[in-house]
Amino acid sequence: MDKNRRVVLASRPEGAPSEDNFSIEELGVPEPARGEVLLRTVFLSLDPYMRGRMSDAKSYAEPVPLGGVMVGGTVSRVLVSHLDDFEEGDWVLGYCGWQDYAISDGEGLVNLGKNPSHPSYALGVLGMPGITAYYGLLEIGQPKAGDTLVVAAATGPVGSTVGQIGKIQGCRVVGIAGGAEKCRYAVEELGFDICLNHRAEEFPEQLEEACPDGVDVYFENVGGDVFDAVLPLLNDFARVPVCGLVAHYNATSLPEGPDRLSLLMREILTKRLKIQGFIIFDQYERFGDFIIGLSHWVGEGRIKYREDLVEGLEKAPRALMGLLQGENFGKVVVRLGTDD
Amino acid sequence: MDKNRRVVLASRPEGAPSEDNFSIEELGVPEPARGEVLLRTVFLSLDPYMRGRMSDAKSYAEPVPLGGVMVGGTVSRVLVSHLDDFEEGDWVLGYCGWQDYAISDGEGLVNLGKNPSHPSYALGVLGMPGITAYYGLLEIGQPKAGDTLVVAAATGPVGSTVGQIGKIQGCRVVGIAGGAEKCRYAVEELGFDICLNHRAEEFPEQLEEACPDGVDVYFENVGGDVFDAVLPLLNDFARVPVCGLVAHYNATSLPEGPDRLSLLMREILTKRLKIQGFIIFDQYERFGDFIIGLSHWVGEGRIKYREDLVEGLEKAPRALMGLLQGENFGKVVVRLGTDD
Repeated sequence: MDKNRRVVLASRPEGAPSEDNFSIEELGVPEPARGEVLLRTVFLSLDPYMRGRMSDAKSYAEPVPLGGVMVGGTVSRVLVSHLDDFEEGDWVLGYCGWQDYAISDGEGLVNLGKNPSHPSYALGVLGMPGITAYYGLLEIGQPKAGDTLVVAAATGPVGSTVGQIGKIQGCRVVGIAGGAEKCRYAVEELGFDICLNHRAEEFPEQLEEACPDGVDVYFENVGGDVFDAVLPLLNDFARVPVCGLVAHYNATSLPEGPDRLSLLMREILTKRLKIQGFIIFDQYERFGDFIIGLSHWVGEGRIKYREDLVEGLEKAPRALMGLLQGENFGKVVVRLGTDD
Repeated sequence: MDKNRRVVLASRPEGAPSEDNFSIEELGVPEPARGEVLLRTVFLSLDPYMRGRMSDAKSYAEPVPLGGVMVGGTVSRVLVSHLDDFEEGDWVLGYCGWQDYAISDGEGLVNLGKNPSHPSYALGVLGMPGITAYYGLLEIGQPKAGDTLVVAAATGPVGSTVGQIGKIQGCRVVGIAGGAEKCRYAVEELGFDICLNHRAEEFPEQLEEACPDGVDVYFENVGGDVFDAVLPLLNDFARVPVCGLVAHYNATSLPEGPDRLSLLMREILTKRLKIQGFIIFDQYERFGDFIIGLSHWVGEGRIKYREDLVEGLEKAPRALMGLLQGENFGKVVVRLGTDD
């Protein structure tokens, strides 16, 4: 009989996570009871928010307990079903975490059917990252034709979708990414107007040049130096949806002074900025509508999507560490089994 | 013939303004040309935003030039009219600044008629401060029955109106003011549920006790230590309309570190806060609607209002200095002439 490998949280990281924070266990494959299904994970999503779950700092979600299986979105196949809504062979979207097999009572599972064209897309452009971009940009960012939209992590699953929706809305889209290859891709493949390498020494000056009419919408998913460069460029009435702050996740203390909190508040007041945080899970009941909207654009080829596939569960810890440093190129998906 | 006394900006303040920054000039009374009216100022409004106009830092409005008349809202009487819409003896609301007489071509003047019941109210609860409270709380703060609303400068013209509208909306209203007498007034006269003295040593702990269910709306008009005490108490999805930051206006540099900008951004993200600045002048075309709404509540006695009258233009500089330190008790209005 096969084993169920699972990656558990061995210790909480101080700063950036390391391999030591994870360990791999092997257990027997669990047996589904009445009212349950047995799932075999095929694709596991890796996302920046996972860094937050490794800490026990207060946040919007419970931390992973020490010794607990790392959480994560998954696309799986049904091996055994004792539930009416699922049949053997169905593809399902769930939240089974970093493991080969999982038991579910069906709650929160989405049945993708027997033959989804791109099952792993449900973890990306047609899943949480895609709808994060869709809701955050359209409802909080409220882009108008002619606006200048700035988005960082421009080739990631959220940033690339934000930028492409911005183009559909008629915005001038300025991307920010790590390295020349990603920048080239954002402009040539995704259709951004320009994309800047935030690792360049002259990045703040280049950003100012790239935004001659200022910035109307800044989709915040990184924070740190990028936010510092954008802040002085924000126009009156600019909107800043705050979706993530990946540059801060590994920080162990606040930066040195001066204390710029009052400076930010002054900018908010004098420029009448709207800075609003959001967590896409709060919009749970609207996910279906968002995915229909995205599917339409993906089907028409107006939103392109790139995956960065990692082969094998044992490589997931290293891949998450790389993701937090921006080493990925596209949406990181771990393939655990063959998708037969 | 009478003289036109006017207070001009003699020098720009470093930190808190002093008497040296102002000087009083005496000129002849101006003559209205065709298409103009001559106005005699009866009431001059003093407001915290005036500190901003004394500096030449970039802001949403032009600074007062050196040697220029200090700006300010005024209620005046028409002495001579060469305009069809105004007659001698009419009361008018305008923006004539710190002087006894002014010439106007009618632009921006609001005719209050021959017998307004409280002409100076047009500078307060039925004017800019009142509609600042009305719009900022209702449209940005979006209070719901049962919400906890915190408002500082609780006996000032904006804060007192915010709190009373909050009560009308069914909120639990927690005021913050400087000193026991103002706090007593906010509770006993204005109907706040509780009001805390921010000068008390245990103020942060008292605020936490006063908000057992956290804070859903914080109407920001002071900043500084009050914001620092409120921030950890904000609930998920809290709204923070940012209307003023009077505690910062005299600051000449940023406070020492650590740099809490990233801490604020993290709070915005994890609690899904909305922090939004606004300047009431942006809503100019809606002022009439807001004032109708307020008049209704004032007429019913559901919104009470207190003025802090200062007699004589020569006392205006000192009164503004006091206002920036929270020494006033109610809306500061300078009376320049008799309101015959």
